Amino acid sequence: MSQPRQTVAAGIFSRQPPPLCSFLFIIVLIVATFYTLHHPYSTPHLFSPNSPNTLRRLFLSSASNATVSSYLRSLTRHPHLAGTKPSSDTLNYVLTHFQSLKLDTRISQYEALLSYPTHTSVTARFSNNTTIELNLNDVVSSSSDVVTPYHAYSPSGSAYGNVIFVNHGEERDYHALESLGVSVGGCLVLVRKGESLGRGVVVKIAETKGALGVLIYDEKDGGGLGGIERGTVMRGIGDPVSPGWPGVVGGEKLSVDDERVSKRFPKIPSLPLSRHNAEIILASLGGVRAPGEWGTGRVGSSQRVGPGRTVVNMTLQGEMKMKKIHNVVVTIRGSEEPDRYVCLGNHRDAWTYGAVDPNSGTSALLDIGRRFALLLESGWRPRRSILLCSWDAEEFGMIGSTEWVEEHVLNLGASAVAYLNVDCAVQGSGFFAGATPQLDNVLLDALKLVQDPDDVELTVEETFKSQNNIIQRLSRVDSDFSGFLHHGGIPSIDMYYGADYPVYHTAFDSFDWMIRNADPLFHRHVAMAGIWGILAIILADEPVLPFDYNSYAEQLQEHRDTLSKLLEGKVSVDPLSVAIQELSLVAKEVTDEAKKLKEEAYRKNDVATAAKRRELNDRMMLAERGFLDSEGIKGKEWFKHLVYGPAAEPESKLGFFPGIADAIATNSSEGSIKHEIWRVTRAIQRASKALKGGFS
Amino acid sequence: MSQPRQTVAAGIFSRQPPPLCSFLFIIVLIVATFYTLHHPYSTPHLFSPNSPNTLRRLFLSSASNATVSSYLRSLTRHPHLAGTKPSSDTLNYVLTHFQSLKLDTRISQYEALLSYPTHTSVTARFSNNTTIELNLNDVVSSSSDVVTPYHAYSPSGSAYGNVIFVNHGEERDYHALESLGVSVGGCLVLVRKGESLGRGVVVKIAETKGALGVLIYDEKDGGGLGGIERGTVMRGIGDPVSPGWPGVVGGEKLSVDDERVSKRFPKIPSLPLSRHNAEIILASLGGVRAPGEWGTGRVGSSQRVGPGRTVVNMTLQGEMKMKKIHNVVVTIRGSEEPDRYVCLGNHRDAWTYGAVDPNSGTSALLDIGRRFALLLESGWRPRRSILLCSWDAEEFGMIGSTEWVEEHVLNLGASAVAYLNVDCAVQGSGFFAGATPQLDNVLLDALKLVQDPDDVELTVEETFKSQNNIIQRLSRVDSDFSGFLHHGGIPSIDMYYGADYPVYHTAFDSFDWMIRNADPLFHRHVAMAGIWGILAIILADEPVLPFDYNSYAEQLQEHRDTLSKLLEGKVSVDPLSVAIQELSLVAKEVTDEAKKLKEEAYRKNDVATAAKRRELNDRMMLAERGFLDSEGIKGKEWFKHLVYGPAAEPESKLGFFPGIADAIATNSSEGSIKHEIWRVTRAIQRASKALKGGFS
Repeated sequence: MSQPRQTVAAGIFSRQPPPLCSFLFIIVLIVATFYTLHHPYSTPHLFSPNSPNTLRRLFLSSASNATVSSYLRSLTRHPHLAGTKPSSDTLNYVLTHFQSLKLDTRISQYEALLSYPTHTSVTARFSNNTTIELNLNDVVSSSSDVVTPYHAYSPSGSAYGNVIFVNHGEERDYHALESLGVSVGGCLVLVRKGESLGRGVVVKIAETKGALGVLIYDEKDGGGLGGIERGTVMRGIGDPVSPGWPGVVGGEKLSVDDERVSKRFPKIPSLPLSRHNAEIILASLGGVRAPGEWGTGRVGSSQRVGPGRTVVNMTLQGEMKMKKIHNVVVTIRGSEEPDRYVCLGNHRDAWTYGAVDPNSGTSALLDIGRRFALLLESGWRPRRSILLCSWDAEEFGMIGSTEWVEEHVLNLGASAVAYLNVDCAVQGSGFFAGATPQLDNVLLDALKLVQDPDDVELTVEETFKSQNNIIQRLSRVDSDFSGFLHHGGIPSIDMYYGADYPVYHTAFDSFDWMIRNADPLFHRHVAMAGIWGILAIILADEPVLPFDYNSYAEQLQEHRDTLSKLLEGKVSVDPLSVAIQELSLVAKEVTDEAKKLKEEAYRKNDVATAAKRRELNDRMMLAERGFLDSEGIKGKEWFKHLVYGPAAEPESKLGFFPGIADAIATNSSEGSIKHEIWRVTRAIQRASKALKGGFS
Repeated sequence: MSQPRQTVAAGIFSRQPPPLCSFLFIIVLIVATFYTLHHPYSTPHLFSPNSPNTLRRLFLSSASNATVSSYLRSLTRHPHLAGTKPSSDTLNYVLTHFQSLKLDTRISQYEALLSYPTHTSVTARFSNNTTIELNLNDVVSSSSDVVTPYHAYSPSGSAYGNVIFVNHGEERDYHALESLGVSVGGCLVLVRKGESLGRGVVVKIAETKGALGVLIYDEKDGGGLGGIERGTVMRGIGDPVSPGWPGVVGGEKLSVDDERVSKRFPKIPSLPLSRHNAEIILASLGGVRAPGEWGTGRVGSSQRVGPGRTVVNMTLQGEMKMKKIHNVVVTIRGSEEPDRYVCLGNHRDAWTYGAVDPNSGTSALLDIGRRFALLLESGWRPRRSILLCSWDAEEFGMIGSTEWVEEHVLNLGASAVAYLNVDCAVQGSGFFAGATPQLDNVLLDALKLVQDPDDVELTVEETFKSQNNIIQRLSRVDSDFSGFLHHGGIPSIDMYYGADYPVYHTAFDSFDWMIRNADPLFHRHVAMAGIWGILAIILADEPVLPFDYNSYAEQLQEHRDTLSKLLEGKVSVDPLSVAIQELSLVAKEVTDEAKKLKEEAYRKNDVATAAKRRELNDRMMLAERGFLDSEGIKGKEWFKHLVYGPAAEPESKLGFFPGIADAIATNSSEGSIKHEIWRVTRAIQRASKALKGGFS
């Protein structure tokens, strides 16, 4: 027919059409109308499953480095330590941003015990009887609005005594000192920051060795600027006075004296020092020479470890206060599966200005919000719901996200598809990521879609691969994914550009530093926002979840091999092998099933197909929960994930299976190691059963 | 139009129809065909949601008391104690039954530590120096195929000493003795079975009082027949050598010496005695007279408590053996929501012939299988999946069901709608039931559909109400619902006809006893199978789950009031009040939502409506899980449900909130009671959040 379609309906009874033509046409029209009316959800809209590439391109093309830069500038105008007055300005900025985009934005408020310094001092008296009081502030920016360098939750008090240099403060460093006949009992210890231990563990070990106090410095000297690293020394994560439950306003709070609370704080005071001050003390030390292997970096081969006649007096007065903290949670409601959630999270609070940590991530999150709002205006609705979360009080121990996870752990377990964390989005160059293994492939797929910020010819994926970067595993407890993964069993990703930036937690972590050193043109910010947002879109929109449990099985196989080598055949890992083999088989079956359903997904959207898809997706979502064990890791029972999580022992040799790692590191009986191997075995079996579904 | 419809299509082109008529007719026909093709799941079939009443009537009318009777006769032909050779015949009978019905039938096998007697003896030497050896078998049926009366998991050994009569063996009984100056230290204690304590607790208390051994008798005398009550005295439930995890073949098994295992067994031997033998000993006791309040039943006011010159020597030799146990699980796959499950369960193993306990329930389960198979042949497919479960080794401590729950706890949590337990289906007259409160109404609805077996004019519901029977709450740990509810948080129902039947666990629990005493014509069996099956059909078929959380909120309110009275204002229950109030509000919202969706349910079955329904159902299913707490009840951590579950203290004054009950009963500090109140508060808050869904 040559006549324009739009005139057919209007003209059908006014002219004399060829009878068969008209007849067929009317039927087609009626059937189409009827079908459309009864399949509202299969009607393709602008960004329906039929055009995922269009949507992704639109999302990526809506990037603007100027905008991201303006967000970061606003966020970093002043320091915004959690619980302080200026932090509510930052809260309002984020809140207003999302609200002005007409996104469903809510505050989730908790009360938590935070810790601030009121007075710190360190004086040193040398062998010549001169006494100096050390300047404890970052060299340049001694502006009064930046909190003085301190360790949150360090006890108030003074420590007075000789000083021993203990290198990185690891167990083996103390052993080396012992073999030289040097004990730290009754002394203060001076620690240079190492790579393997967090400051909390450094203090904990010093405490067990009988030290009176701890001074920690970093040879990097805050990028050579004289910056000093703040940080928390609390044990465990989340609000210390509501351990294991949400610290909601009006809820149960333990007393600070309660053993469940006080065990989370060190018993001896600690303070961070500048490199300059540390080297003044180092130079004055007497005693024997440091072990040869300590003579690295700026520590010379003739360095003495002390004691000598230098006496140091450190004083720390702090206050612990109940403070309101505020997460901001934006919900973009899914069109077809509103009760399945993809969560993006970043914290907002900073030790100082937070240009890198965490507001490079916050500016990316705000930009994702802006761009999602654009897509929503153009008609897009994600299939699943997306949450954009801005956490508070991460620096004190992931408090905002942990309380939120504790409040919602049941619903998260039943409905969270994945958690995507970005803390320090941009620290420098090079893309880094950690993930639970079933997300490896979707992460790499996302990287393929984003242009490398440092080479326009390449995608991030190409650079990432060419640099032999591997996707890390998330056993560490250093950002907000911890509660989601280690407590909630939610598949997680954590990403950042650059690593080990020198102004970490110093007063120099400012907008100025960012544009001078890490991302002058905000290309890396844009790349990170791109990767993060695309991941959210893929995970929220793909009818069949792009989870790959073959990767998980392969990774577990590698873990098993590493463990087996470490055990040198003394304890059998056969139960693990059998369980991983089973997971591998189920993963293959599920992959085939997913492939079939993916092929169907674009063609069919009837109740039966939707139900089948949902069922498969639920199994893939649930499988990660299998790794949780209600008893948790011995001694750190809040951490329930038996594959990834913190080993209680600081010097565990594995980066996975924390329970097994602990049992080995503490020289437990063969029976205890076996039992831990069985626990992981059963965790893997639970994951297989969840992935398989049903009860056979 | 007058012409018969069926001729229209055939004749449309062979005759000259009125043009408009034909035209319209063809359109209607084409549209109808098209619609049907694209809505395969909305096509009503014989028993679709459009005809639930037809289906239910058909189910009820397919009952046959002769058939149920024949099942029971076959099941009770010989004793079938778990782990023994004859029990595999019973297994095969059940297995073959379901398989012959062409139902998807599987065995789930575990290895568990069971306990059997090899030799028992009790001799008494009286003041006149005569010695008698007591006959320890049930009076009449000393047939060799019935296991000799014993207490499973009682340690092997001898106890020799004077005897003290301790009434029911409750704490207060010992206190009464103490006030008379009588101590049981170094003596054997003689206990008459009371109403409040299980035998395991009786032995535990005796152990703490320093008794050397325990002899228990029942004044009911096995229905006056001389029957003796067997039973387990294990602490906790499930296989003792795989505590907390599934005892799968080849899995981890602890050694019997492991403290985690041995703590589950008593340290002193115990045996059941016949009333006759007990009264011989009672009559010989010297010492002071029993407290006045003990002079009830057959204990006279002049009864002496001992000691006297009577000396008893009890010897028990037993063996604990790893045995294979076998659950049978039938899956009737759901048509629309195959990944949601309604589970029906009953155990199969018996101490002796098991006519009441448990095979009255088994025969009902077999009959439900038969009738469901009929319905399936007629075209019915339940919307959700139905499981028919036949558990093994319940008598040793709910072992079969517990291991199964432990193996599947993750998948159960994600997909089990309800668990419907029937153990002793028929003990006598009168319908009794326990339920989690959201199931109260659906239970009553089911009772309305079933004819009272003892009065053809009434429904079971009418009799139930007229007898002022109330639906009990399921804190007790005495049948297979325990794992589902207390460990898995699955809404549960437990039902039985009659209560406290006299031949409980004796050799007289036979088919003969059943037809003479409890159900001559099997009408009660039929009624129970009717109620059980109808409940399964309703819960599996209703598009919107018939859960009522208003009932739960009201029940919690009552519990709160009871608790409040008990506490006499010494500790505030305000947090509970606030949480219950919130649950109440959410329950009302959900009720409205459910009402709307129910109205829609029969009209619409598009993807969006199905998704909304599923989402609401999931919330109602999940809410019960909120009452679980990963830390569990203090001292009984496996029991995770904080509203219903066993109080560790035997004489707790509440039948709910076990953690709070324990804290009160053990005279814990106000702080500890408060903490337990907070834990329940948070459990209720979790339930509210689950019921509400999302993260606001």
